[in-house]
Amino acid sequence: MNNQPSTAPSKRTRIRRLAERAHYDQKTLYEIVDAAYLCNIAFNDGESTHCIPTACWRQEDHLYVHGSNGGRLTKILTAGTQVSIAITHLDGLVLARSAFNHTMNYRSAVIYGTFEIIEGNQKKMDALDAFMDKIAEGRKHEARSGDANELAATSVLRISLAEAATKINNTGPEDKQEDMDLPVWAGVLPMAIKYGEPIPGNTSDVRTPIYVQEWTQKNN
Amino acid sequence: MNNQPSTAPSKRTRIRRLAERAHYDQKTLYEIVDAAYLCNIAFNDGESTHCIPTACWRQEDHLYVHGSNGGRLTKILTAGTQVSIAITHLDGLVLARSAFNHTMNYRSAVIYGTFEIIEGNQKKMDALDAFMDKIAEGRKHEARSGDANELAATSVLRISLAEAATKINNTGPEDKQEDMDLPVWAGVLPMAIKYGEPIPGNTSDVRTPIYVQEWTQKNN
Repeated sequence: MNNQPSTAPSKRTRIRRLAERAHYDQKTLYEIVDAAYLCNIAFNDGESTHCIPTACWRQEDHLYVHGSNGGRLTKILTAGTQVSIAITHLDGLVLARSAFNHTMNYRSAVIYGTFEIIEGNQKKMDALDAFMDKIAEGRKHEARSGDANELAATSVLRISLAEAATKINNTGPEDKQEDMDLPVWAGVLPMAIKYGEPIPGNTSDVRTPIYVQEWTQKNN
Repeated sequence: MNNQPSTAPSKRTRIRRLAERAHYDQKTLYEIVDAAYLCNIAFNDGESTHCIPTACWRQEDHLYVHGSNGGRLTKILTAGTQVSIAITHLDGLVLARSAFNHTMNYRSAVIYGTFEIIEGNQKKMDALDAFMDKIAEGRKHEARSGDANELAATSVLRISLAEAATKINNTGPEDKQEDMDLPVWAGVLPMAIKYGEPIPGNTSDVRTPIYVQEWTQKNN
């Protein structure tokens, strides 16, 4: 199996609707995945189709998730079940002069494939360290690491990013020529992530790490 | 079919993992749905399982989506295909003293069922007006309404919210007693939606509506 994200779409990832918004390059895919803390995993368990949100992170050309060892989701995902995963960032509402031309600005990725389980405590630890690095760089050296029981209770799974497509809309309002002079406000109402003031949970004095001090600076 | 959201979970909506976070009441469900502009629709088309993000809005006890008439998604969803829909809001990262106890604060809803198509131009218009009201209250009286061609090109679908479950995590860090004195910063790094400064797209003077003027006030 080719582990490099495709430069050409597969039958499943070829975008037909508004195809001009489609991208199949690795850089775009990685940026969308790396900006996400959550993904939505769709799968069919033989009875029903499910869509389950869960935390995720990327390492090289794989998307990783973790779960409770023995949990239903882990069992299904490690059984070779075909999945489809969506990650979407909403960047704004686009208000056109005509109702029909209203749209949204967004970046989305859809990934297809099957998960494989990460075996071996060191590999699991490495993957969970990478997740911690995504959450807060350097924190893996501060927080108490998982002990043998905690590690055994956690399953780590990964899926190749080889079969994926991204879709981006980043436009202003686009109206028909005959609507352009209507006295209607047109434009974009931007949306992004707001990083709020950290809420300390310690009762005793501990040093505030840089990534906590700088959390709200991500707003700029 | 019961059109009131269940007060008791179905086989598919009963949450097993961290069941103390589960809610099955209508008010919680509506709040999570109403805070979303996007949902992720999972379905199986007979060959593959897919997970497709799309815009959504609620009217009474149904979730609505719209799409291109004749588009692949519309065709599949109107064919009685069972779907599962996830809506998730990420509210923050919860940093515990131990790696294992890190978590996220979130509100999520998962809905099961099948879509039905909205027939008749007036009903479609009413549904699309409700969508516009969600985007910007009162704007349906300002923007040019859809004409016959635009309306014919648009499919509007809805799904009952009767079979749904929500899950909420809203906590501070929770560590084992023996970890409580570790010199590790613990707390919450909050996340929310940031409403950015509106970007006007008009070249001529038009009145700026209240909902545009007040867009960034939603940050407070």
